[in-house]
Amino acid sequence: MTDVKAYAAFDPKKPLGPFKISRRDTNSKDVSIEIKYCGVCHSDIHQARDEWGGAIFPMVPGHEIVGLVSSVGSKVTKFKKGDKVGVGCLVNSCRDCSACREGLEQFCEKGMVGTYNSRDKDGTVTYGGYSTQITVNEDFVLRIPQSMPLDGAAPLLCAGITTYSPLKHWGAGPGKKVAIVGLGGLGHMGVKIAHALGAHVTVLSHSSKKQEDAKRLGADEFYSTADEAVFTTLGNTFDLIINTVSVKLDLNKYLGLLKRDSHMVLLGVPESPPELSAGSLIHNRRSLAGSLIGGLPETQEMLDFCGNHGITSDIETIRMDQINEAFDRMIKGDVRYRFVIDAKTI
Amino acid sequence: MTDVKAYAAFDPKKPLGPFKISRRDTNSKDVSIEIKYCGVCHSDIHQARDEWGGAIFPMVPGHEIVGLVSSVGSKVTKFKKGDKVGVGCLVNSCRDCSACREGLEQFCEKGMVGTYNSRDKDGTVTYGGYSTQITVNEDFVLRIPQSMPLDGAAPLLCAGITTYSPLKHWGAGPGKKVAIVGLGGLGHMGVKIAHALGAHVTVLSHSSKKQEDAKRLGADEFYSTADEAVFTTLGNTFDLIINTVSVKLDLNKYLGLLKRDSHMVLLGVPESPPELSAGSLIHNRRSLAGSLIGGLPETQEMLDFCGNHGITSDIETIRMDQINEAFDRMIKGDVRYRFVIDAKTI
Repeated sequence: MTDVKAYAAFDPKKPLGPFKISRRDTNSKDVSIEIKYCGVCHSDIHQARDEWGGAIFPMVPGHEIVGLVSSVGSKVTKFKKGDKVGVGCLVNSCRDCSACREGLEQFCEKGMVGTYNSRDKDGTVTYGGYSTQITVNEDFVLRIPQSMPLDGAAPLLCAGITTYSPLKHWGAGPGKKVAIVGLGGLGHMGVKIAHALGAHVTVLSHSSKKQEDAKRLGADEFYSTADEAVFTTLGNTFDLIINTVSVKLDLNKYLGLLKRDSHMVLLGVPESPPELSAGSLIHNRRSLAGSLIGGLPETQEMLDFCGNHGITSDIETIRMDQINEAFDRMIKGDVRYRFVIDAKTI
Repeated sequence: MTDVKAYAAFDPKKPLGPFKISRRDTNSKDVSIEIKYCGVCHSDIHQARDEWGGAIFPMVPGHEIVGLVSSVGSKVTKFKKGDKVGVGCLVNSCRDCSACREGLEQFCEKGMVGTYNSRDKDGTVTYGGYSTQITVNEDFVLRIPQSMPLDGAAPLLCAGITTYSPLKHWGAGPGKKVAIVGLGGLGHMGVKIAHALGAHVTVLSHSSKKQEDAKRLGADEFYSTADEAVFTTLGNTFDLIINTVSVKLDLNKYLGLLKRDSHMVLLGVPESPPELSAGSLIHNRRSLAGSLIGGLPETQEMLDFCGNHGITSDIETIRMDQINEAFDRMIKGDVRYRFVIDAKTI
């Protein structure tokens, strides 16, 4: 066991502060990673504040982890010391169910093991990337393309795969009109990836403040949904809508923007469930779906795709002791577009 | 013009009664049909009582029409006098939009012309099958298989295609587990068709009263949803759920019954929209979709399929003057499973 510096939430209502955790020894199939950066995901706030229930305190959040391999176990074949690697939202799964066998470990039928706030198969509590080191089985470690800067790569491990997976699954590409609802941490990655996939990209945002950014990130069009006329103008327009917003929206208005036989995919969970009119789906045979991060193979595919297209996240690097302020700013939407913790400051 | 006997709703709050309408002369592409039977669809009640708004009175309902061709126009090629034919929910469309060109006239981008309570392209109000004769362009007339009894065939024109279309579109067949929610006019057709398609069929009904019927109609399994344990027992079980119920259900509980990457399809529109938790969709990448009747080519395919499999609707034949009582009984769910009007009694 190795003592490692970390930052933890100790209680849903108190600020995060310094904490010491133990990382396991490097087992034969393990990769030990010197963490360089960790992205700050909105779900870190939800879990640190126990807004989803079942929180395990003290909690060390963080599942957008990048770093360098510091040592590998005797049977590790995929990585060697010094490699640029990442760890995303999960660090274990049963590996035997149909989901795991298909490389969709996020839907493991026995439950995936989250990178933090979770119990691993041996009963130990998992601690995330707000720390200086992590030890993970090599099968749950991702390779970061050599060309990619580590700081901007970190958010790809959650925000990147969460948008890449539905864009690929529902066929975003040339000739397809894709709308990204919300231009935050997820949305800005969605725009970059959908654009790189060759789709025609429209950003729908509640205010017009982010119009210039949207265009810079790769959007072909931008509409402020504060203007109700948008829902008429853009009716029956899109082949795919990726809804990154986790506040309650009138889904029926957005469903009306879909072409026949098209899909809106929800990535966020609003605190109170929206009302759904069946007529919004019945007309034009539309579908409303959900998507959850991505499996290990697809996460690697996304990293390689982003490497090939020069895509990283737009980030603001912070010191570890700025995390509480960062949480507050994220809740106000005051970040363009992802905070990334510099692990040197932990 | 020909004067024709009919039954009409004159006002949302009054019973239906006798009415006389004029049918147009048989134009060159028209088929005139001596109506033999007309099924009574729940949407007849909604429209006669103006529950969806925009009702045009007097209204002659009925869109599950079967009969014999009495005359054809000079350019009609598909039908001849004496043929067994049917007319479903639509009698015209633009024929030029992408939906019409794909044979999905129910989604005509300029709006389909309903068989009743609608305005045709020339501005005339359409009158439905609660009458003794109808004249329809041959492209909107369906062929009823020779072997099929006309009375039991009538409900196929709406209830049959409304269930056949989503079962086909979402791949019901051998090796697939399909649940039919609700065993009414739509549900009983769904069971027969899903079974004939080779799927494993489970009926989910609020009471256990229809268990024997479900098995007789072709269901492999039956569960009463009054027992909450069903939602645990059957979790992650189905490849497809066809929800025929138009009262408000907790959709989230039903979504939990779907396997990964599977679909629930809504056919009915509850008066108050249900609340949808995004988590129900995000977990296991599930979809919620809607479906609306079917286009002309698929309706013909369904009729031929039902002919080949000996499928008709279970019906109770009524006289025209029993229609108001029939409406009341339908609202109580007291029909197994479709009322069909004998047009001789009009």
